[in-house]
Amino acid sequence: MPRGPDPLNKIITLFVCLVGLTACGQDSKTDAISENIQNLQAQALQSDLAYSLLHALTTEVGPRMAGSDGDRRAVQWSRTIMESLGFDKVWVEPVTFPVWRRGEESASLITSYSLPLAVTALGGSPGTEGQLRGEIVRFDNFQALVDAEASQVQGKIVFINERMEKSQAGGNYSKVVQGRHNGPYVAAERGALALVIRSVGTDDNRLAHTGMIARPEGRTAVPSAAISNPDADLLESVIRSGKPVELELNLDCGFDGAATSFNVIGEVSGSDPDAGFFALGAHLDSWDLGTGAIDDGAGVVIIMAAAKLIADMPQRSHRGLRVILFANEEQNVYGGREYARAHANEIALHFAGAESDFGSGRVLGLVASVNDDARPAIEKLARQLAPLGISYDASKSAYGGADLGQMRKLGMPAIDLRQDGSQYFDNHHTANDTLDKVDPDDLKQNVAAWVTLAWFMAESQQALGPLESAK
Amino acid sequence: MPRGPDPLNKIITLFVCLVGLTACGQDSKTDAISENIQNLQAQALQSDLAYSLLHALTTEVGPRMAGSDGDRRAVQWSRTIMESLGFDKVWVEPVTFPVWRRGEESASLITSYSLPLAVTALGGSPGTEGQLRGEIVRFDNFQALVDAEASQVQGKIVFINERMEKSQAGGNYSKVVQGRHNGPYVAAERGALALVIRSVGTDDNRLAHTGMIARPEGRTAVPSAAISNPDADLLESVIRSGKPVELELNLDCGFDGAATSFNVIGEVSGSDPDAGFFALGAHLDSWDLGTGAIDDGAGVVIIMAAAKLIADMPQRSHRGLRVILFANEEQNVYGGREYARAHANEIALHFAGAESDFGSGRVLGLVASVNDDARPAIEKLARQLAPLGISYDASKSAYGGADLGQMRKLGMPAIDLRQDGSQYFDNHHTANDTLDKVDPDDLKQNVAAWVTLAWFMAESQQALGPLESAK
Repeated sequence: MPRGPDPLNKIITLFVCLVGLTACGQDSKTDAISENIQNLQAQALQSDLAYSLLHALTTEVGPRMAGSDGDRRAVQWSRTIMESLGFDKVWVEPVTFPVWRRGEESASLITSYSLPLAVTALGGSPGTEGQLRGEIVRFDNFQALVDAEASQVQGKIVFINERMEKSQAGGNYSKVVQGRHNGPYVAAERGALALVIRSVGTDDNRLAHTGMIARPEGRTAVPSAAISNPDADLLESVIRSGKPVELELNLDCGFDGAATSFNVIGEVSGSDPDAGFFALGAHLDSWDLGTGAIDDGAGVVIIMAAAKLIADMPQRSHRGLRVILFANEEQNVYGGREYARAHANEIALHFAGAESDFGSGRVLGLVASVNDDARPAIEKLARQLAPLGISYDASKSAYGGADLGQMRKLGMPAIDLRQDGSQYFDNHHTANDTLDKVDPDDLKQNVAAWVTLAWFMAESQQALGPLESAK
Repeated sequence: MPRGPDPLNKIITLFVCLVGLTACGQDSKTDAISENIQNLQAQALQSDLAYSLLHALTTEVGPRMAGSDGDRRAVQWSRTIMESLGFDKVWVEPVTFPVWRRGEESASLITSYSLPLAVTALGGSPGTEGQLRGEIVRFDNFQALVDAEASQVQGKIVFINERMEKSQAGGNYSKVVQGRHNGPYVAAERGALALVIRSVGTDDNRLAHTGMIARPEGRTAVPSAAISNPDADLLESVIRSGKPVELELNLDCGFDGAATSFNVIGEVSGSDPDAGFFALGAHLDSWDLGTGAIDDGAGVVIIMAAAKLIADMPQRSHRGLRVILFANEEQNVYGGREYARAHANEIALHFAGAESDFGSGRVLGLVASVNDDARPAIEKLARQLAPLGISYDASKSAYGGADLGQMRKLGMPAIDLRQDGSQYFDNHHTANDTLDKVDPDDLKQNVAAWVTLAWFMAESQQALGPLESAK
């Protein structure tokens, strides 16, 4: 049934207009896009849909590591949900990858006494095949390990002790994560027994942060694990005291065959089938330690809820929306790469794309990778987002996310809605990634931002591409 | 070598005077106690001694559960430290108790899938003797379990789901902890298989809070454990969905013989051997999951550092100080009860006593259990503490702490320095009880408060007792 704005929505719309004067100036009253967007924002800021979907995903499905039973449940769940939300078309596309499994894992610091540490294997790590014990050699960061002589490392357990800094933009993650990505290979090349890193995380909880190792072709990794920040503090402190210190490590993990999971795709059709669609991405898989509420349950429900609001509009938008829930992002972007491979010839259909994969912190910024002619259109979009506290930075370009970034590389225009990441790396890839870490109001603001973006893109008459392939 | 105030100390003393005008009015210049206290406070606020002792205790000794190797290391360590700090006399007094040990422990929620929960056995719990599986019956709080019919509980696993509230004073701990203390017995009497409680803690980390069950004579407990707050949220949510839900519980724990540990006691002598001493207490044991930095490493180092400042004074105080580090407080106040038994005839020697056992949050309040004639003296003490942000509440009486409270019951006057407990129950009895949770400046303020109390008590000419025995 077609639905017009109800009185409460009108009041909220008025409020949004008063708050965001820039968005409601001379052109807004005559601008159908603005009016629809204000209405959609008001609905998004009231709706509990995203939170209740996230509740269901984290409760009924739970952890969904790629290739696990939870992964299979998640595919079934999201398919059923998208169908029940009234998407016009829902389908799946297969994604095949090697299965990494985690078993028992433990570590102890051995000095004048033995202290169990909070440890977790890094994704992709081989196991230790029983208990492994060795002297520790400490490095301040990944580069220091690269610079080390093999004689310093040979037969020892490497400890990379770089602390991640907290910041709104996500801090020095890309620098610190080098130790996790490539440390296992450099340690192996220097003859180490194993690698232990300080967790790539900004918290002080005794919960270790997992995450994938790089898996470059033809190189071998040592058994690799992360210890929690307080454990790394303790280890550092014992090492500094100059006392003999060893580590005992037991990691039962490794690759075990292959599995096929699925990119789950839903579409809300537009009125013009030739206008292509705007792509909204998130990833359906999570790590196994928590229930994947922030990574990336939040993204999954934000884009589903935004698309649902548009599906419920009384009129069809000009072009459609494609919601893509990617398989196995965590273990090396299998879903995103497979999607880009399968749809490489359909770049033109992808009017533009954006991905939500940074938890549930509020959206603060807008950046775009579009052609120069399209910049005025992005400025219009920015005026629609401004009432939500979002500012546009024309000097930066968009990444497109881990998954849709693969399409970005092939020339798809991309938009990033940059979020407040102050808390994100506190719980990222830990057992603490659970529903209680999500603020329902922040989630609503995200849906409001995404529905704004989606409607604007679905209605835009201005082409954003083509862009050169960045591959 | 006698040591007078240096210029920097004089400046700090002046600052303390300016801040705390009440403490530095007409009588302060003529009051030797005030002058010494101001000097001691200034030193305490500058000294890193307490923090470096806490660093050593948590690094070199680590966890020190009663009867463990860590407990033995802690006794040796604290004896050596008190001797090296220049205490006049250091000795130990034996304390014997049953040994409770913790082995492997796990729990899984079984619904349409199986989810491992963050779980830990409650201290004193019997083991499950292998895997135990049962239907869950949920109660909002301990009283609801007490009110239940046996037919509701028989053959099931009881889940007490009461959430502890956060507050500066420690919130509703004493109410919520009933489920931990007595739930295991009531559950057994109603025919339950086992008990699982929502952790008695104010955090949202997937780390369960352990703690002792009550152990009343002649009653039997079921195997009992705590799950973390996020896990309790999840369990509650699955139960509310109406789906079938069971719990699998595996607790390898239980009592295993007896051990003898020690109350470690150090004295700083006064000038008058007949004037008795002021007793400063803390407990040396900790739980096994963390390194016992806040519970009660902080108390141990605060009272040691305060006594050390007084030991270093150029002149002896009138009466001495007795620093008592109690054995096995956690598992039913064995050290405190044994001390009270052994020293019951020496109440008169204990001029008064106070215990530090609430982490490292700043001292905010002073309360006292003294005779009415001594109230003006306590008001004088309050004026000395005021510059540190501490206010006196004459309407409340002092508890004396879990350990020295046993002497309080026998008539010893007691003082409580009440701390900011806002954060305390976030990490209490969890793996997160580690050094990084301690703010060095807060620790200094504690030492300043304790050295004020200790010097005032050591110099006081006003008797605070006798009090009636409260036993």
